[in-house]
This record gives sequence, C-alpha cells and structure tokens, in this order.
Amino acid sequence: MKQQLMKMLEQRKDEMIQIRRYLHEYPELSFQEEKTAQYIADFYKGKDVEIQTNVGNGYGIIVTIEGGKPGRTIGLRADFDALPIHEETDVPFKSKNEGVMHACGHDAHTAYLLVLADCLIKLKAELAGTIKVIHQHAEEVPPGGAKSIVESGVLDGVDAVYGIHLFPTNPAGDVGYHSGYSMAGRTYFKLRIQGVGGHGSSPHMANDAIVAGAHFVTSIQTVVSRRLNPFDMGVITIGSFDGKGQFNVIKDSVELEGDVRYMTTEVQELISKEIHRIAKGIEEEFGVKCELDYVPDYPPLFNDPEITAEVVAALQSSTEPEIKSVTEFPMFSGSEDFAYYAAKYPSCFFYIGSKPKGVEKPYFNHHPKWEIDEDALLVAAKAVAEVVCRG
Amino acid sequence: MKQQLMKMLEQRKDEMIQIRRYLHEYPELSFQEEKTAQYIADFYKGKDVEIQTNVGNGYGIIVTIEGGKPGRTIGLRADFDALPIHEETDVPFKSKNEGVMHACGHDAHTAYLLVLADCLIKLKAELAGTIKVIHQHAEEVPPGGAKSIVESGVLDGVDAVYGIHLFPTNPAGDVGYHSGYSMAGRTYFKLRIQGVGGHGSSPHMANDAIVAGAHFVTSIQTVVSRRLNPFDMGVITIGSFDGKGQFNVIKDSVELEGDVRYMTTEVQELISKEIHRIAKGIEEEFGVKCELDYVPDYPPLFNDPEITAEVVAALQSSTEPEIKSVTEFPMFSGSEDFAYYAAKYPSCFFYIGSKPKGVEKPYFNHHPKWEIDEDALLVAAKAVAEVVCRG
Amino acid sequence: MKQQLMKMLEQRKDEMIQIRRYLHEYPELSFQEEKTAQYIADFYKGKDVEIQTNVGNGYGIIVTIEGGKPGRTIGLRADFDALPIHEETDVPFKSKNEGVMHACGHDAHTAYLLVLADCLIKLKAELAGTIKVIHQHAEEVPPGGAKSIVESGVLDGVDAVYGIHLFPTNPAGDVGYHSGYSMAGRTYFKLRIQGVGGHGSSPHMANDAIVAGAHFVTSIQTVVSRRLNPFDMGVITIGSFDGKGQFNVIKDSVELEGDVRYMTTEVQELISKEIHRIAKGIEEEFGVKCELDYVPDYPPLFNDPEITAEVVAALQSSTEPEIKSVTEFPMFSGSEDFAYYAAKYPSCFFYIGSKPKGVEKPYFNHHPKWEIDEDALLVAAKAVAEVVCRG
Amino acid sequence: MKQQLMKMLEQRKDEMIQIRRYLHEYPELSFQEEKTAQYIADFYKGKDVEIQTNVGNGYGIIVTIEGGKPGRTIGLRADFDALPIHEETDVPFKSKNEGVMHACGHDAHTAYLLVLADCLIKLKAELAGTIKVIHQHAEEVPPGGAKSIVESGVLDGVDAVYGIHLFPTNPAGDVGYHSGYSMAGRTYFKLRIQGVGGHGSSPHMANDAIVAGAHFVTSIQTVVSRRLNPFDMGVITIGSFDGKGQFNVIKDSVELEGDVRYMTTEVQELISKEIHRIAKGIEEEFGVKCELDYVPDYPPLFNDPEITAEVVAALQSSTEPEIKSVTEFPMFSGSEDFAYYAAKYPSCFFYIGSKPKGVEKPYFNHHPKWEIDEDALLVAAKAVAEVVCRG
Repeated sequence: MKQQLMKMLEQRKDEMIQIRRYLHEYPELSFQEEKTAQYIADFYKGKDVEIQTNVGNGYGIIVTIEGGKPGRTIGLRADFDALPIHEETDVPFKSKNEGVMHACGHDAHTAYLLVLADCLIKLKAELAGTIKVIHQHAEEVPPGGAKSIVESGVLDGVDAVYGIHLFPTNPAGDVGYHSGYSMAGRTYFKLRIQGVGGHGSSPHMANDAIVAGAHFVTSIQTVVSRRLNPFDMGVITIGSFDGKGQFNVIKDSVELEGDVRYMTTEVQELISKEIHRIAKGIEEEFGVKCELDYVPDYPPLFNDPEITAEVVAALQSSTEPEIKSVTEFPMFSGSEDFAYYAAKYPSCFFYIGSKPKGVEKPYFNHHPKWEIDEDALLVAAKAVAEVVCRG
Repeated sequence: MKQQLMKMLEQRKDEMIQIRRYLHEYPELSFQEEKTAQYIADFYKGKDVEIQTNVGNGYGIIVTIEGGKPGRTIGLRADFDALPIHEETDVPFKSKNEGVMHACGHDAHTAYLLVLADCLIKLKAELAGTIKVIHQHAEEVPPGGAKSIVESGVLDGVDAVYGIHLFPTNPAGDVGYHSGYSMAGRTYFKLRIQGVGGHGSSPHMANDAIVAGAHFVTSIQTVVSRRLNPFDMGVITIGSFDGKGQFNVIKDSVELEGDVRYMTTEVQELISKEIHRIAKGIEEEFGVKCELDYVPDYPPLFNDPEITAEVVAALQSSTEPEIKSVTEFPMFSGSEDFAYYAAKYPSCFFYIGSKPKGVEKPYFNHHPKWEIDEDALLVAAKAVAEVVCRG
Repeated sequence: MKQQLMKMLEQRKDEMIQIRRYLHEYPELSFQEEKTAQYIADFYKGKDVEIQTNVGNGYGIIVTIEGGKPGRTIGLRADFDALPIHEETDVPFKSKNEGVMHACGHDAHTAYLLVLADCLIKLKAELAGTIKVIHQHAEEVPPGGAKSIVESGVLDGVDAVYGIHLFPTNPAGDVGYHSGYSMAGRTYFKLRIQGVGGHGSSPHMANDAIVAGAHFVTSIQTVVSRRLNPFDMGVITIGSFDGKGQFNVIKDSVELEGDVRYMTTEVQELISKEIHRIAKGIEEEFGVKCELDYVPDYPPLFNDPEITAEVVAALQSSTEPEIKSVTEFPMFSGSEDFAYYAAKYPSCFFYIGSKPKGVEKPYFNHHPKWEIDEDALLVAAKAVAEVVCRG
Repeated sequence: MKQQLMKMLEQRKDEMIQIRRYLHEYPELSFQEEKTAQYIADFYKGKDVEIQTNVGNGYGIIVTIEGGKPGRTIGLRADFDALPIHEETDVPFKSKNEGVMHACGHDAHTAYLLVLADCLIKLKAELAGTIKVIHQHAEEVPPGGAKSIVESGVLDGVDAVYGIHLFPTNPAGDVGYHSGYSMAGRTYFKLRIQGVGGHGSSPHMANDAIVAGAHFVTSIQTVVSRRLNPFDMGVITIGSFDGKGQFNVIKDSVELEGDVRYMTTEVQELISKEIHRIAKGIEEEFGVKCELDYVPDYPPLFNDPEITAEVVAALQSSTEPEIKSVTEFPMFSGSEDFAYYAAKYPSCFFYIGSKPKGVEKPYFNHHPKWEIDEDALLVAAKAVAEVVCRG
C-alpha cells in the first residue's frame, strides 16, 4: 500500500500547491476562520469518512478514516489560521484579505494534509488502524484551538499524534526532529504595583511605585541566574514597564507585563513560584500592594522519545527521493499549541525544510516577506505517509 | 513720613481689595499677562515716575520712584501671573477666564504693591533713596520672569530686594521669615536609555532597556542616602518611567523624567554631578546609550541674614496694630523665582499670613478652592512699608 | 551672691587645672572608674552635703547641695570616664594608664564641676533652691551611666538638668548652644541572613545568602531617600558585610552590622519600622531566614527650648569677661547619653569652646592628640554659675 | 591481536587492583607526586619503550609505544594526583598519608593504564600505529598538568587523545559518553572595590564600598539572565563578599571572589566581557576603584563528535562481557583539565561506571567516603582497548 500511496501523492503534488495557494489568497485570523473551515469541510463532502465540525472552541474539524485492517489509532494535525500581518511578497497568489497573511505556513500544512487524507481515504480498505485528521483552528492566539480539542475528548483513545511545521532555515528535502522537550512553554504575566502618589518634593508623604517596580525588575533577574538549574532553559522578560507620569509627581502605581519561557513543566512551576514569591516580598519590603496575574498558556512541547525514535527510523529508512536527509534539530524557544496534544498523548512534532530555492537568508516565520519552497509540500506528505505506513 | 504712609495705607485698604478682586476676575497665564500688564501700566499713567515695560522675557514692568532724600536703592517685587486651574470657589469675583485662576495670591501681591507704590510716589519728596517697584510676570513657569529681569541689568545697583508671599497656614497679622536658605531650588531631568529591542525569548540578541532603567532607579537612591550631608536637604524623584511596550518584546528604550530639590547651590552641584556620573556608569555597565537632559531652573532662595535681620527688627519693633506677630518659619521644599534676585542682590523674601477667617484647614496654594483673608493686604502693605522706612 | 561666687571661681582657677591634670594622668575606662570615683568622693569628704555613691549601673555619684533659700531643684552633670586610646600628646601630665586617655574632655568637665560645687557648698546659706551635682560614670559606652541614674529615680523632682561639653573648634570664651534636637540618637543593628550553601556550579541546589544580602543593602537605601522627610536627618550605614567564603562555594549565610543616626524620636521610629519591614520583605523575596537584632541606644538629645532660652539669656547678659561670646551651634551627628536626662527632665546641654591657643586646626574629640585650652575650665565654671544664679 | 589483548587484560585484573590499592595507600597532592611518578617510571623500567619524565610543569610522564604496523598516533591519558581530604572509609588499603586521599579515582585510572600499556608493549609488533601513554600529574589544582604537557609540544602529531573517568552513579559495566561540549570550563575572579572609609554618621565624607559591592552583585545577575542565550549554560557565583568591619565605620574597601562556569568558549568570552564591563561601570557609577583579577583556568571540555562517534561505535559493537551498556550522559558542570588536550587535538573523554556493589546512593567524587567497584578497572582497560584496536 505504501508504494501506491507514495505514487498517488506524487501525482497530486500540483493539487497540493493549488490548494496551498488558494488558502494563501484567503487567509483568516485565529478564531475567525469560517470560510477556511467551510473550504475544508467541502473538500471532504461526499467522501466516505466521518467528519466533525466546530470542534473545540472554534472551527476545528476532525475527519476519521477507519482503515480496513486492524491497527493503531493515530492523529495527524495541521493548523489553518493566519496572522495579522500585511503581506509584502510579490507572489501572484498574494493575500487578498488586507492585513491578514499566511506567514507561518499553515496554508501549506493544511494543503498537504488534505491531499494525504484523501489518498488515505481512497486506500482505506488496505489501511491498518484508524486515522483522525485534525484540521485545527487558532494556533496563533492563546488559548489556541488545540487545548479545547484535547479537552473535548474527541481524540481520546489515540495511540499517537503527529504534526509538522515548515522550517525556512533548511532546504526542501530535509526533515528535522528533536526528541523530548522541543519547543518552549510560555506564560504571560501582569504585575500592578500600587503605592501612594504625592508631590515630588515630599517622598515621605507618598510611596513611590516606580522605586518598588525597579526593585522588582532587579530581583526578578535572580530567578534565572540563581534558581534555575544552569542546564535548564528559562527566560523572564519584562517587556513593559508602564510608569509614565509627571516628572515632579511621585507615581502612585505602575504596571509591568512580562513573558516567561521554559522547556519543561518543572521549570514552569519553579519560575511561577519564584515570581509569586518575589511579588509578595516586594509588597512587604516597600509597603505597596502587588496584584499579579500569572497566566501560563502553551506548555512546553514534549516529543515522546519512543514515538520520535520511530518517526526518525521510518524517515531514515525511507527510499523516497524527496526525503533527502533527516537532521536532529536543537530546542527552540518558540511556542506551539501542538504541545497540548503532546501533553496528553504520545506525540511527535517535526520539521519540514522549506527554504526557498536560491535564497541565502530566508525570512523567518511571521515575517511579511515569508515565502516557501513549494516542493516542501510533497516532502511533508511523503514524510507523514512514511509515519502512517509504519504505524 | 512713616506715620503718614501708614495712615494713607489704612485709608486705601478697600482700594487694595478692589484691585485684588479685579485681578482675580481676570487672571492670565504666565507669559500671556498682556492685559494684566496693561492694567498695571495704566495705574501708573500720569504719575511722576519712570516706568519701563516689557522688561525681561515678557510683560515685566519696573517703576522707579526717586526719593527726595538720599538713601539706599531697593527693589520691591510682586508677581502677577496666574495658574492653569479651574476655580472652584464661590466668591463673587470668581475667575472669568475659564481654566485660569489666581490660586497663588499673586493678585493680592500686585494689589498691595500698587497702592503702596502710589502712596510712596505721593510722599516721594520725603522719601530717602530710590525704590524700584518690580511688577514681575511669569513666576509660575520656568524659566520664569525673574531671571530675565535680573539679566537685563535694570536692577543693577540696588542695595536690597524685598518680596512677600501670602501663606495660608498662618492668620492675617502674622508675618513669617526664615534667614539663609529658605526655599528649595529645583531641577528637571530626562534620561533616555537606548538599548536594543528583540524578541522576549531571546535576551541575548537584544539589550534590555527596562533592566538598565531599573538599575538606574535603584542606583540613584544612593545619592540622597550616601552622598548628601545628612543635615542637608535633597530630594530626587523619578516621576515618570516610560517603558510601556509589548509584554513579549524586549524594550529597546525607556525614558525617565525626574525632579530634584535642594536648599543650597552646593547640594545642587553635588546632585548634578552624581546623577551625571550614574548615567555614565549605567551606560558602561549595561552597554546602553544614555542621553541625559539636566535642566536646573529656580535656584535655592537665599535670604541674606543681615537684610533679614533688619526686616525682622523692623517688624518686631513695629507699632502697627495689624502686624500682630513675627514668626520664624522653617525651610520649604517649594520653589520661587525670587531666588534669582536673591542670588545677585542681598534680599529678603518673607511671608504674610492669609488664612481665611473661621477656617480650620485652609486650602493650600495651587488648590482650586484657595482663598485668602483680605486683611492680609493691609498687613503686607504695612510690613513692606516698615521695611521701606527702615531702609 | 553671684559676684562672690564668680570671684571664688576666679581664685580657684589653678585648682581646677590641677584637678583636671591629675584626672588626665589617671584615666579609667567606662564602668571601670573605681579610683576616679573614689577621688571624687574623697573631694567631698567632710563637706556639709549629702553624697550618694554607686548610683545607677556603676560608680555614679550624686551630691545634693540644699540651699538656704527656696528655689528650683536643678541637676548639674559632668561625666568622668575615659577612652581606650593611646595618648600621643607631649603634655607633662600625659596619661599614666597605658592605652587609656581622657581624649573627650571629661577630666575638664569633672574638674570645673568639683570646684564649682565646693564654692556653692560654701555659699549654700545664700543659695536659692537645691543643686544635685551629678558625677556620671560611663558616658562613652552604651548603655552608659545616664540611663541607669535616671531610672534610679534619684533625680526625680528636679526642675532642670544642665550639662556642658568642651568643643575644640571654638576658642575659650565662646559658649555654644542649640535649642531643640541637638545631637543624634543612634541604633546598632545586626542582620543575619541564613540561606543554604552549595557548590558554586549548582545555584539551584542552594540559596545564595550573598545575593539576598546585596539586595538588602540596595533596598535599605530607599529608607533615607524615600521614607524620610527631606528636612529630617537620618543615616543608615552598613559598616560590616561579613560574607567571606570560598570563591566556588555558595555562601550559606552572611552577617551585616549597621549604625543608624537620627535627630528625633519620630525618625528613630520610622527608620526602625522600615528596616524591620525590609528584612521581612527580603525573607519573603529570597526565601531566606532573617534574624534582626535592632538595638537603639542613646536617644536624640533634646534641649528644652524654654530652658535653653534662659541659658542663652543668662549668658548673653553676663558681664564676666571670660564669657566672650554666645554662639548658636548647628546640630551634630554625634551622640551623648545626657540625652537620657533631657528625655525625662527639661534640660540644656551646651558647649564650651576649648580650642588650644595658637592652633589652626585642632584635633577633634577622641583623637590621640586631643588637647584643650585650660582657660575653658573657668569659662565653664562661670557659664554654669550664671545658669545656677539665674535659676 | 584484540582477542589476545583482551585475554591478557582479563588475566591481569588482580594486578590492576593491587596497583590501584598500592597507589591508594600512598596518595600525593597535586604537583607533589614525586613518589607516585617514581613508581610509574619504575614500572616501565626495562621495558622496550621510550619514557620521558618531568614533562610539563611537574612530574608528568610520557611513554611512547611504537607499533610494528602503520597506523594512527594516539594518546591515552590517566591522571595520578590525589586530594587534600582526610579519608573516612574502612578499606584495608586506606590512605597512609594523613590528610591526603585518592577520592577522585586517579589511582584506578593509573592502575588500569599501566597494565594496559604493558600489554600493548608486549603486543607491539602487531600494534598498528603509535601510542603515547600520558601519565599526568596535577589534575586537581589549576593551572593543572595538562596545559603544560600540551604546551611542551610532546604530543604534537597525535591523531586523537582519549581519557576516562570513573563515575560513581552508574554500575561497573556501563560506559558513558557525551559528544561535543561535555564538562564545564571555569574561571576564578577577584574584585577589589576601593572606596573611602569614614565615620558611619558622615556618609558624605566617605565612599561606601559595601554599597558599591552590593550593586555589583545585583548587576552581575543580569549577565546570566539577559546576556546568555537561554539554551546556553553559564553560572556566576560570588562565593565570597569580604566586607567585615566596624558597624559604625563606613567600609573603605571590599573584596569579592567568584566562580564562573560555562560549556563553550563563546560563553566564556561573553561572560568575561560582561563582568569586566560591569566592574568598569560600577567604578564610574560609584566613583570607586575596581581591581578585577579574572583568571580562566580549565576550558570547557569538547569531545570531538567524530572521534566520540567512533568510540561509541567501538563500544557498542564490543563483544566483551564486561562492557554491558553504553549510555549517553548529560553535560556536567564539573571541570577537567583533559579539556586542554581536547582543545588542541581531536579527543574523547568518557565515563566508566564505578558504583560500589550493593550501594544505593554512592558517595560522589571528592567525598571522604568515596569508594569504587574495582571491577571497573577491567572495564576501563577493555573499553580503552576497544578504542585502541579500532584506531
């Protein structure tokens, strides 16, 4: 069956590209992907599969392909939302939705998976096990779509979930992987420090919130420098210190906003505990009131080592000419809501090189000039096909 | 002559009040006191004095009264600008210029001095020495009017300059004084810290301006705590820490604005040197670029001890019933551009109690409900008359 | 009687000097002044007065002189302990007790008062009121002698207490005074910060006490810079940061010791509250344990304004040629346990110029080369005699 | 030849143990290993090899075994110095040199290598290539012996250098490896901050070195928290803050000592630059003088990926029953002067499990109760033999 599948994919390479270009022209923002979801649902119309729409907290779609033979149940996930970016490329299929752009490759993710799913449907009699195709909405904006899909229980019972992401630093043909913790989890926090305002010449009649805020900033540095295992990754950035006021009036309150990154849940918990502790300490130390909103969103993405080893083995032993190399990637500090699948089910999220041909320094994801090598679509399809056939 | 002068002042008490009320109804902002200046000039029209208008950087007026007898040349200063405050009193002569208010008593200062000057003109044959009446514009807004009047040289040769200010904590009849440094000098500063922006997850690719700014704030505390003589007064307030940004983007720059207060020029110089030094240190320490605008405005107000002792002696020996007590006042952290006269000429700036009758807790200067006891006008006139006659 | 007293003092000037030189040769440390006390007690032997020895927590002596006429009861205090200093002068009456020196003038304080007391005893029939001569031990070492004498109740009922101190910056003949708060109160504190030690390469396994201590030091600066009224005097010095350890071992604990100065009890209380608050905040912020010993000793010395005004009036109207000038002195940051008398009874502590003749820059108190102009003894005796006779 | 070699090693297992026990009884401190070196030299006496003694800055010994066949030249290194630790074990061959102990396994390293070298000498006719046996002195104390041996040039021309270390967490039979950067580099630094002393009540007359030191400590935290790539390892510990003084005397100088760790030379350079920068910034900011001694010693240990892959392949394909498993180890924050070989020649330093049988929680290196499973000696010998035979 694998040979047949691979041949079918080759023959439908252009179709993948056309779908991708169509989606690229009509990008939709996270949680607003009504037409994209309709397009996907239409694609499956009349096909012999179960389709669930409006899954989770948005336009999520689950397509269940029951194979004719016994086997594992696996999920294949592709996200389909776009970004609030004004496209600056010159491609003929440039975004027609002003200010919205598929600058993160989700158009390509969806395109390859639609075609692959269709091929699998056609071959389902020979397919071992069950495949849940996960067309996921809203990956870009917390709380994202993945969490709600997982919580809906629709995937319960799957043996593994797989997802891919285009990666512009490596050429089409290269497939990247990282076992274990692979992408960072992140937290948003807001700290409001309430002191007492007053005249600049009378500090004893006031309680200076800027001074308390400055001490919070210096103290918080010790979490990374002294609390973390030096071999662990953790970042705390205070991106906003809102203390604008009159030069000669003691500021009554300031508002700080920050971003936290980590590669493991242990580090997440450690940093959370320490930031809360320091906020409380500042309260005591300066007699101010600290209100801390601490909101973890996407967890660290953990690629199951066993599942990942299987993926690597499948790819390394692949004889498909499009799969040219299999490369171990480092961890990344970016975040992905695929992490929610991986937190519940053994999973593997891997990377498909998409560096545009002839380009030395490709634009990175989320850049208004982001482009891809469309050969990557067939690579993605074949790589996932290898995984499916192995499974 | 003194007796005659005192009697004339008593007889014109109502006129002082009427002038004060008129000015109160038509307040004008600093550097925009065109009509007020015209009113003052008109007052002197036809009188036997030399009058100079548009003195300094605004509508300043100098009236020179040459006495018939030899004696000292002295300056008597009253300021005449108002504040950008919406009056909230219920007085019948409430401000008719919406959003502008004589909430600092300059209306009363001008009113008493006009009448006193007119009496002195009438008595000039008997007057010993020369009096320069200084009707000063723009006391409230740096750089103020005083500096430019002093720099114009129009006062050169004066032996002393005197000024008064209404003071709402003490009742009409009480005259306050403080010898030596009496009111604070002040400086405005702005520090722009330029780092390098970047993504919140990649601090090593950026240079966090918020962290550098926080260290500036903590370091600057040591100027007051460790550099100042503990018996000296000094305040550094950072009233604005403008570092608003995206929570997950490392801030490229922040802008801090601050206010510095001091009672002596030595402390002014010390603090200036230290803030410049710390800004330079932060630059080195964090590899950022610090642009520091450091703008001293009104200097500390220094009441010449000898001149002040003469004023106190004159007041203490006064037999005028309106002058009920002479009180030593503490230093104040407020600032006054009378300090510029005092920096060049031996001077004394003293206080005239103006607490409204029957009021326990009077509103302070610059409050929209500020009111005065109009008896204070005659007290002011007689107190300054005592000083003039002594001179 | 005053004239007679003054004449007697003049005649016994040499005796004062001899007594002073004798005491200078045989100085004794605080709480160890056994022979000095015996010398004083012997002086009064056979005189018609009540004498109490071993008063308070040491060798304090109270001599009560009951006048023959009605009047106030007043205390006259002189301290008699010396310092652990190796004398470096060349005077013929240099200290014979190695390593101990009267480098603070207490020898002179005692000498003038012994002679003055003896004169008053001789004139007691004409004396109005009662005089309690307080020969006080242990001024130099907290808790000092004054506190225990006050607590003994032996002075209860006095209307006023007076004391003097030689002052080397002003010449003999000048008497200095300051009304209200005049000398600083002080506090000793020790902060022990207990963290968790560990290997330098594994901060996550330890809790770095040096980092917590450094944050305490930077935070504590804000007490003076932001909590104090800028017109108030306050100093916090951390004179010891004991954190010596191995360069590659995370320090488990550090011990900080500090000194606090203030001119009013309000500031004392404010600083105490703030240091305790910050220690608690650091505990919370860094998860360490903070043990704070906070030990105020001598309070600020408050000269009763009324009593001080009387002293000044008495001195200013003095016709004694030795009293050449009466000068207002600034506040001093030094401390004196006379403050305990002043905290309970209306008191005045004033200064007797003692600058050695022909010396431009005299050595200050506690210097091994400290010397005095012995003319100051008669000035002291006459100045206090003026106060006694006025009373 | 390999089979023969392995058999010879098996037969001489007891000899290895006896040698190890002998060395264990007579440990010598770094740079003082005179007798140990003599023992080693004696071992080779009469054997058909070239032996160089006193190599480098101490008792280093290089034994060159020229094989009868062409091949690579490789180095095999074992260190032989001991630690200043009082042994607390109950083994019969306990240290006889009071206060000195082989608590880091160098006795075992030397023992296995002597026997292995002797076997190779015996088989040299069949040996392909040349082997340089490096008996290295002074690994424990910077600057160590390795650096000077490398600098002597005696190894120039080697194709690879191999070394092993016993590791107590894994059982005998397990061999551990890590490719790339594997053990931390480290730096010692001392910062002397010179301010100006003074009396605790007069901060304006002094320049408080403790305050400057505290700001250095808080600033330095930002190097790890903001300058490092969050995926890189770096530690800065200030293990000593020597600022002990009198509580009421402003400290004139403090001395800080610190330890820096890193896994790459890039991080070493980054941290060095930043610490120097901050010291200079503190100098400017607080007007103090900073003297910084910054002394990098052992660099990060870099295992050449290709060489390491060869070692892993050799071990994984080994059929020797003593080599039971080959495990990837994480990076360690400890340091090793083997790093100097690895910095110049392609090298691999790997780990030999030595957990004592029946022990749950073994004591770690440098512990006075450190013990080993002596089976590890034969494992070490066979593992290195596999590497040699592969080479």
